[in-house]
Amino acid sequence: MLSKSQISLFKSLQHKKFRKVYGLFIAEGYKSVAEFITAGFVVENVYHTSAIAPKLLKLSAKINFQEISLADIAKLSALSTPPDVIAMVKIPERPLLDAGLLQQKHTLVLDGIQDPGNMGTIIRTADWFGITHIICSEDTVDVYNPKVVQATMGSLARVNVYYASLEKTIPALKMPVYGALLNGQNIYTTNFKNEGLIVMGNEGNGIRPGIQQLVDTAVTIPSLGKAESLNVAIATAIFCSEISKNRFK
Amino acid sequence: MLSKSQISLFKSLQHKKFRKVYGLFIAEGYKSVAEFITAGFVVENVYHTSAIAPKLLKLSAKINFQEISLADIAKLSALSTPPDVIAMVKIPERPLLDAGLLQQKHTLVLDGIQDPGNMGTIIRTADWFGITHIICSEDTVDVYNPKVVQATMGSLARVNVYYASLEKTIPALKMPVYGALLNGQNIYTTNFKNEGLIVMGNEGNGIRPGIQQLVDTAVTIPSLGKAESLNVAIATAIFCSEISKNRFK
Repeated sequence: MLSKSQISLFKSLQHKKFRKVYGLFIAEGYKSVAEFITAGFVVENVYHTSAIAPKLLKLSAKINFQEISLADIAKLSALSTPPDVIAMVKIPERPLLDAGLLQQKHTLVLDGIQDPGNMGTIIRTADWFGITHIICSEDTVDVYNPKVVQATMGSLARVNVYYASLEKTIPALKMPVYGALLNGQNIYTTNFKNEGLIVMGNEGNGIRPGIQQLVDTAVTIPSLGKAESLNVAIATAIFCSEISKNRFK
Repeated sequence: MLSKSQISLFKSLQHKKFRKVYGLFIAEGYKSVAEFITAGFVVENVYHTSAIAPKLLKLSAKINFQEISLADIAKLSALSTPPDVIAMVKIPERPLLDAGLLQQKHTLVLDGIQDPGNMGTIIRTADWFGITHIICSEDTVDVYNPKVVQATMGSLARVNVYYASLEKTIPALKMPVYGALLNGQNIYTTNFKNEGLIVMGNEGNGIRPGIQQLVDTAVTIPSLGKAESLNVAIATAIFCSEISKNRFK
């Protein structure tokens, strides 16, 4: 049985303020919940339907799974279609961000991404290409927003996301800085070094002028058509593909 | 003033059935409406706020623009945030699809894409890379769905989208057929000919077995991480990038 206080705790976690207070976020759906359990996150208050029970019980003997109806799950869920399993996950402590963590790697830097779907898709794409760290400006959408968690399809369990002042962090890291900008050099002939920061800007406004000044190499995805711009998750994916592809040749 | 019949006509166009009956779809927002006007589409019943009037009136002297309040636009809109302009656009007649149209080009083939955001983003990305034709299976989400139109950001005015039986159409076109599949050859070392069909599958299930049989070359985006899959709009973008990039070198 669901208590009123459980419902109200789940509901409160749809808001960033309460996620910060409780240090918890919501994971919805088998794929997402399973990835967090497998990756060793602290997963609590797992509510699920009877149908998904056999798959869930194989995942962990330690977790207290609680079977309820789909109608009750709908009371806890942030999604328009309630999932067959929902859980609370403890927000992990991240190691301090320092240049040592990022050596010999490419790291994404997001300057003010606002759309949860874009943010989640960027994390999922980063995971595909083996990018393990993402640094976000403080006004970037919260990574523990339920719609972001959902769109990552479990990849949030493997990618470390940091929020920091980009003005201070980018210079402190002392790495090559590439920025997705108009009128930059052609991405297809850019020689990406084997480490560096890749800066992607906000959906409507791109990279802020103050951050543009920190970019060493402006890089552009050239166009053959007439579209004014690419979606930022799409542009990020093409950058991830271009910086990674030499490892596959 | 908005009449009840105008409100009910706009509302009805949120449904595929009525879009077919009336031969009309809805465009929302300045960018989208402007692109359809500029591209020569028949645009009717343009309702807008006073704020956007100066920009709109520059677009066309022939169109009857009607100024109403934002609250009234909200009554017509399919979006959660009403736009500053909304209009009806006549669904264009497409030329008959034949191989002549597709020569020396790459054409996307979508097998059962369901999510309107993915569909719109694919059209926007195709437009960026100069892809002018997309062939969809008959069960692919309707391109005139308001959420698809919105996500194309005006690119729907330039990309021709066809619905057809893929089982019949693919063999009839007699072109090289590449398919996005697991366990195919590495996309980064694939020599894409200068024309061909690129088949992308449904979000959950990929390309249907019957369509897989029509693929000449299975192609895979290799992974460096642990994500199980890429979002289909992201995968499509990486294909568009790879088939186009030689033109930029």
